[in-house]
Amino acid sequence: MVNQRVDPSWHTSKSDSSGASNSGESSRDSSRCSTPVLDADRTDRLRDKMKRRIESGDRWFSLEFFPPRTASGAVNLISRFDRMGSGGPLFIDITWHPAGDPGSDKETSSMMIASTALNYCGLESVLHLTCCNQSRDTITGHLQKAKRLGLKNIMALRGDPIGSDWEEEEGGFNYATDLVKHIRCEFDDYFDICVAGYPTGHPEAESYADDLRHLKEKVDAGADFIITQLFFRAETFLSFVRDCRAIGITCPILPGIFPIQGYQSLRQLVKLSKLEVPEEITEVIEPIKDNDAAIRNFGIQQAVEMCRVLLDSGEVPGLHFYTLNREVATMDVLRQLGLWVEDPRRPLPWALSANPKRKVEDVRPIFWASRPKSYIYRTQDWDEFPNGRWGNSSSPAFGELNDYYLFYLKSKSPKAALLQMWGEELTSEDSVFEVFTNYIMAQPNQNGHKVMCLPWNDDPLAPETNLLKDELERVNRRGVLTINSQPSINGKPSTDPIVGWGPPGGYVFQKAYLEFFTSSENVSALLKVLKKYEPRVNYHIVNVHGKNITNAHDMQPNAVTWGIFPGREIVQPTVVDPVSFMFWKDEAFALWIEQWAKLYEDESPSRMIIQYIHDNYFLVNLVDNDFPLDNCLWQVIDDMFEILDTPPVALQSN
Amino acid sequence: MVNQRVDPSWHTSKSDSSGASNSGESSRDSSRCSTPVLDADRTDRLRDKMKRRIESGDRWFSLEFFPPRTASGAVNLISRFDRMGSGGPLFIDITWHPAGDPGSDKETSSMMIASTALNYCGLESVLHLTCCNQSRDTITGHLQKAKRLGLKNIMALRGDPIGSDWEEEEGGFNYATDLVKHIRCEFDDYFDICVAGYPTGHPEAESYADDLRHLKEKVDAGADFIITQLFFRAETFLSFVRDCRAIGITCPILPGIFPIQGYQSLRQLVKLSKLEVPEEITEVIEPIKDNDAAIRNFGIQQAVEMCRVLLDSGEVPGLHFYTLNREVATMDVLRQLGLWVEDPRRPLPWALSANPKRKVEDVRPIFWASRPKSYIYRTQDWDEFPNGRWGNSSSPAFGELNDYYLFYLKSKSPKAALLQMWGEELTSEDSVFEVFTNYIMAQPNQNGHKVMCLPWNDDPLAPETNLLKDELERVNRRGVLTINSQPSINGKPSTDPIVGWGPPGGYVFQKAYLEFFTSSENVSALLKVLKKYEPRVNYHIVNVHGKNITNAHDMQPNAVTWGIFPGREIVQPTVVDPVSFMFWKDEAFALWIEQWAKLYEDESPSRMIIQYIHDNYFLVNLVDNDFPLDNCLWQVIDDMFEILDTPPVALQSN
Repeated sequence: MVNQRVDPSWHTSKSDSSGASNSGESSRDSSRCSTPVLDADRTDRLRDKMKRRIESGDRWFSLEFFPPRTASGAVNLISRFDRMGSGGPLFIDITWHPAGDPGSDKETSSMMIASTALNYCGLESVLHLTCCNQSRDTITGHLQKAKRLGLKNIMALRGDPIGSDWEEEEGGFNYATDLVKHIRCEFDDYFDICVAGYPTGHPEAESYADDLRHLKEKVDAGADFIITQLFFRAETFLSFVRDCRAIGITCPILPGIFPIQGYQSLRQLVKLSKLEVPEEITEVIEPIKDNDAAIRNFGIQQAVEMCRVLLDSGEVPGLHFYTLNREVATMDVLRQLGLWVEDPRRPLPWALSANPKRKVEDVRPIFWASRPKSYIYRTQDWDEFPNGRWGNSSSPAFGELNDYYLFYLKSKSPKAALLQMWGEELTSEDSVFEVFTNYIMAQPNQNGHKVMCLPWNDDPLAPETNLLKDELERVNRRGVLTINSQPSINGKPSTDPIVGWGPPGGYVFQKAYLEFFTSSENVSALLKVLKKYEPRVNYHIVNVHGKNITNAHDMQPNAVTWGIFPGREIVQPTVVDPVSFMFWKDEAFALWIEQWAKLYEDESPSRMIIQYIHDNYFLVNLVDNDFPLDNCLWQVIDDMFEILDTPPVALQSN
Repeated sequence: MVNQRVDPSWHTSKSDSSGASNSGESSRDSSRCSTPVLDADRTDRLRDKMKRRIESGDRWFSLEFFPPRTASGAVNLISRFDRMGSGGPLFIDITWHPAGDPGSDKETSSMMIASTALNYCGLESVLHLTCCNQSRDTITGHLQKAKRLGLKNIMALRGDPIGSDWEEEEGGFNYATDLVKHIRCEFDDYFDICVAGYPTGHPEAESYADDLRHLKEKVDAGADFIITQLFFRAETFLSFVRDCRAIGITCPILPGIFPIQGYQSLRQLVKLSKLEVPEEITEVIEPIKDNDAAIRNFGIQQAVEMCRVLLDSGEVPGLHFYTLNREVATMDVLRQLGLWVEDPRRPLPWALSANPKRKVEDVRPIFWASRPKSYIYRTQDWDEFPNGRWGNSSSPAFGELNDYYLFYLKSKSPKAALLQMWGEELTSEDSVFEVFTNYIMAQPNQNGHKVMCLPWNDDPLAPETNLLKDELERVNRRGVLTINSQPSINGKPSTDPIVGWGPPGGYVFQKAYLEFFTSSENVSALLKVLKKYEPRVNYHIVNVHGKNITNAHDMQPNAVTWGIFPGREIVQPTVVDPVSFMFWKDEAFALWIEQWAKLYEDESPSRMIIQYIHDNYFLVNLVDNDFPLDNCLWQVIDDMFEILDTPPVALQSN
C-alpha cells in the first residue's frame, strides 16, 4: 500500500537474524540505543530514511516552500507547516534568496523558517544554500549556524550571479560542485546534501551532455540525492533518469512536480527557469487563461496524471512538490495519488521536534500538551532530553517565556479576531466563564463568533477532549475554567484513531487528568472534598504567587500516559511533574495578561476583570490514579459544587 | 496494627504539604530522586528507618545470629536468613568472635556472613566489632572492609579481654566509647552505630550508676541506638529505660529478648553473661530440665508474656531477639505477638539486595528470576545500577560465573540428596524429562523422593508458576524442559497475594513468558510455528555455542513485568534483554554440567546423557506481547507438537 505511512523499523527488524555470536561479542559489539526508540524516522538521517523507503517500496513526497516576506506571513507559513506536516511529507525544503538576508535571525529569513519547521513543527527540513558571489567565510558561517540550529540537510546550489558581468573566480565558488566539496571538506559527513538536476539541461550549460557531466561531478563530490527542476512531461524526467544512470549516477533522483495553479504564476516561473511549456498544455490553457478555477483544476489533473506515470515507471521513489507556499493544489494532487496520510499515526501523544538532539526525547510534562512550541522553546537549551524516565532530568532549568511575540509562539489569530471571540467588553467573571464554555461547545457567542481558541489552546478541542465535552461544559459554566484534560484509558489498541499512538500491536493507557483555573472560594470547598479521595486523587493547587498545596510524594512525577508495545520497554510520554508544574504555572498565569488582558485598554473594566482572575484564581491539576475504574474527577467537582450550594448550617434554636 | 509491614513513605507523604514556593526555588532546591523509589525502607539508613517507625507507631523486631563454625553451616545459615528474612525483621546482626578470624574472607567469618546477609539476602545488617586488644590499624582495616562490602551499621563493643592480666592502654581501645569515637572520627557519619546496654549493670562495672554513666558516654560519643543484654523480667528493662532517660539518654533502646530454648544453653549463657536467673524461672525449669520440649514451650510462653508487657508499656519501639541461630522459638514468639509478617509484600517482583549502591536498582533481566544471588554476584562490580530504564546500562559487563562453589551460590541440598532427586542413574533423555516433570508436579519420583529443586531453581515452584502447573507438566513430559515462566497479567491489584508487588493502590501487569531447553528437532518445528505468531511472539533461541535465532528488534529489551502506582512513574522491574540473555545462556548451560553432570562419574552413561543435552539442546525464550489476550505460548508449543506428530507426507502415488 502506498498510502500508509508505516514505520519501516517494524518491518525490517522482524526478519530472523541468526548467526554465531557468543556472549562476549554480543556485549562488546552492542550498539543499542539507550532509549526505547519507537520510530526509526526520528533517528535516521534523511538519506537513510530514503534508503529504507526505497527498500520497502514505500513511496514518499516532499514539499518546497519559499520564505515569507512579512512577519504575519511567517505566522501563516508556520501554521501551514503544521497543517501540511500532518500529511506525512518525508521532508520539506526552504529556498534561499540572497537578496532577502536569508541567513539572518529575522523571522522571515530562510534560516529561521527552516529552523522553525525543524524545531517547532517537527519537520525534517532541507535548507537551500547558494554560493555564487559569496565568500568562503560567509558560506561556512551559514553552515555553522545551520548546524547549531539542528539542521542536517543542505540543498547546494550555485545560485544566480548578481549582475551580468559575473566571471569565474580562481578558487572561489563558481559551481554548486564547489559548494558540495566545501561542505564535505569543512563538515565531513554531518550534512546530507541535495543537488539540483535539470531534465532538459541547465539553461546556461553548453549542452545537455555537458550538464549531465556537471551533475555527475556534483554527485561524485558528495551529494546524496538529486531534486530536479520542474518539467511538463513524464517522459522528460524518465529519459533524464536513464541518462543519469547510464553515466553512473546511482543516488535517488526526485522529480520536481509543479502543479499549474494559475496563468500568471506559470508564465513567471517559465520565464525564470527558461523552460518551454509544451504545446499540448498551452493549447488547453490559453483559452481559459482568465478562469483561475479552470486553470487550477487542469493543473491538478495534469499533475496527477503525470505523477501516476512517474510512479508506475518504478523509477520514482518519491515526488517533490513546488508548492509556491499554497496548500490546496498540492494536497489535492497528493490525495488523489493516495500519498497524503489521511489518518496520521502519532509516534507519541505530543508534537515532536525534529531537532537531532531531541531524537531520544520521549517524555514531557502534560502541562504543555496544547503548547508544544512553547515547551520546545523553553527547553531548547537543555543539553540532554529526558529519555526514559523523566526523573533523569532532576532539575529542569526552563527558560523564561517573555518572548510571546516570537512568530512561532504567537496566536494564529489577529487581535481583531481574538476580541470577537473573547469579547470586546467583559462585564464580570461570568463573561469569562462564558468564553470558556463557548470554546468547549465550539458554539458562536452572543455576537455570533465561534470561539476557536483560548490563550492556552490555539486550536479547537482535540478529538480526545471531545470525549469529555458534556462534563467540561457543565463545569466551565460554573467557573471551573478547564485548560487541559484527558480521559482515563485502560488499554486501548495503539492504533485507536482517537487516543492511539506509537507502533501498531501495542496498548495505550492514561490516568484521567483535569487542569483548570478556579476561584479561591472554590478551592476551599475543593480541599474539603479532596480529603475523601485520598490516596486515589493526586492534586497540585497553586496561585500566581506560588502558594502551593499538594498531596504528591516529594518531588516524584506521576506517569499519566504510557504505552506497552511488542518487544519494547514501557514508554511513558507524559507525566505530571511537580517541579515543572511550577514553571508551567508562571506561563499559564502570564497568558491571562499577555494574550487576553492586553487586548483591552489599561484600566478598562475588561482588563481589570482579567487582572483580577490572574491575581486571585488558583491553577489546579487533578489526577485520578485508579485508571481501570470510572474517572472520579467529575464526581470530585460535583462534590465541590454541592458544598458550595449547601447553605451554611443555621444555629440550632433549642 | 502491629502485624502489618507497611511502607511508611506511603503514610508520611500523603499529608498535605503546603507553603509558599516559587518556581525558581522549587527547581533549585529540588533534591528529588533520579528513580521512582517504591520503598523508603530501601533508601533510608537504619536510624532513619527507626525514626519513621517510632513516629508511625509501627513496631519492629530484629534478629541476632552468630557466625557458623563450618562451611556447610554457612550454607544452612544463609538459607535460614532467607526464611527468617521473609518475616520482616528491621535488621539482623552478626556477632564478632576475635578467636574466629572474624574479619577474614573465610565463608564462616563474621564479615562475610554479614556481607552475604546484606548483599545476597537483602537484609539490613549490623556487624558487631570488638576493640579490646586490637590495634587502631586493625580496627580501621575492618571498618574499611565493611564499608567496601556495603555494610552501614556497626555494633561497637569492648569485647572480652584475652587473658586475665589485661590493663588499660594509654590511647588504646579500652572501652566501647573509644571505638565509637574512632568510628566517628575516621568515618564521620557513614556508619550507624549501636552500643550495648546492661539493664542490671555491666558485670565489671563499679556500680549500676557508674555503668549508666558509661552508657551515656557511648551515646554522647556518637552512638545511634542501644541494644540491651538479655534479662528475665520486663520491669528490669523498663526501670533501666527510665534511668537512661533520667540522665539524658534519648536514643532508641531495644530490649534484648532471649527465649529460653533449653536447659544447657540457658546455663551457659547465664554463666557467660554473669546474670542471675530469677527464682520464678528456676522453680519452673529445674523440675523439667530433662524435657527439652517442655522447656522450650515454657521459654516461648515466658518470652511472649514479657514482650507483651514491654510493648504495652509504650517504651519499646522494637524487640531484639537472641536467636542462637535457631528458628522455631523466635518465630513462634513473633507469630504470637503478631509481629511476624505472614504475607510479606514484595517491593519488587525479585529478591532485593540491601547494598546501598543497589538501592536504586529497579529493573533486572527476567532470566535470573530463580537465581537472584547469582545475578547479584555477577553484577557486583557494576558502578551503576540500571535505574529506570534498563537501556541506560547499554553494555552490561557481567562477571563470569565460575565460582559455583561459593557458599551463597551453592545448592542447599547435599550431593546425596540431589542424586536421590535427580536419579542415581539416568538411562536416556527421557529420564531427564521425568525429573523436570516430577519437579513441576512436586511429586515423588519412582524411588519415592520428591524433586524439590533443579539446577536452575533451588526452591520449589513459585506460587505464581503454580498457576501454570498443568500446562508445564504436559510440555515437560515431552521434552520442553522449562526453567522459567510467568503467566500474562492484565492489571491485577498490587496487593494480589500471588502476583502483586509494590505499594498498595497500584496495578501490576505481565507479558506471558516461557523459557526452556529443548532438542534441535523440536527447535526446527518450533521455528515453523513461530512464523504464524509474528509479531505477537518474540523469541530468542540459542545453543551453547552461541548460535542465536531471534526476531527481536536490534538490541532492544522487552518489558515483561510492569506496575502502575498512585503518584509514581511506571516501574518495569523485569525485561527480556537480548544482550543479557547471551550471558545468562552461558550460566544456564553451565549449570547442566556444574550441578548435574558432575554428580556422576566421568564417562558414565548418566554423565554422558547430561553432556549430550548440554552440547545439543537449545535454550529458548518466548514472550507473548499481547498481554490482554489469553496467553498463546501453550498454543505455540502445541502447534510444535502437532508438526512433530504429523508423519512426513508420502509421495503421491499417481
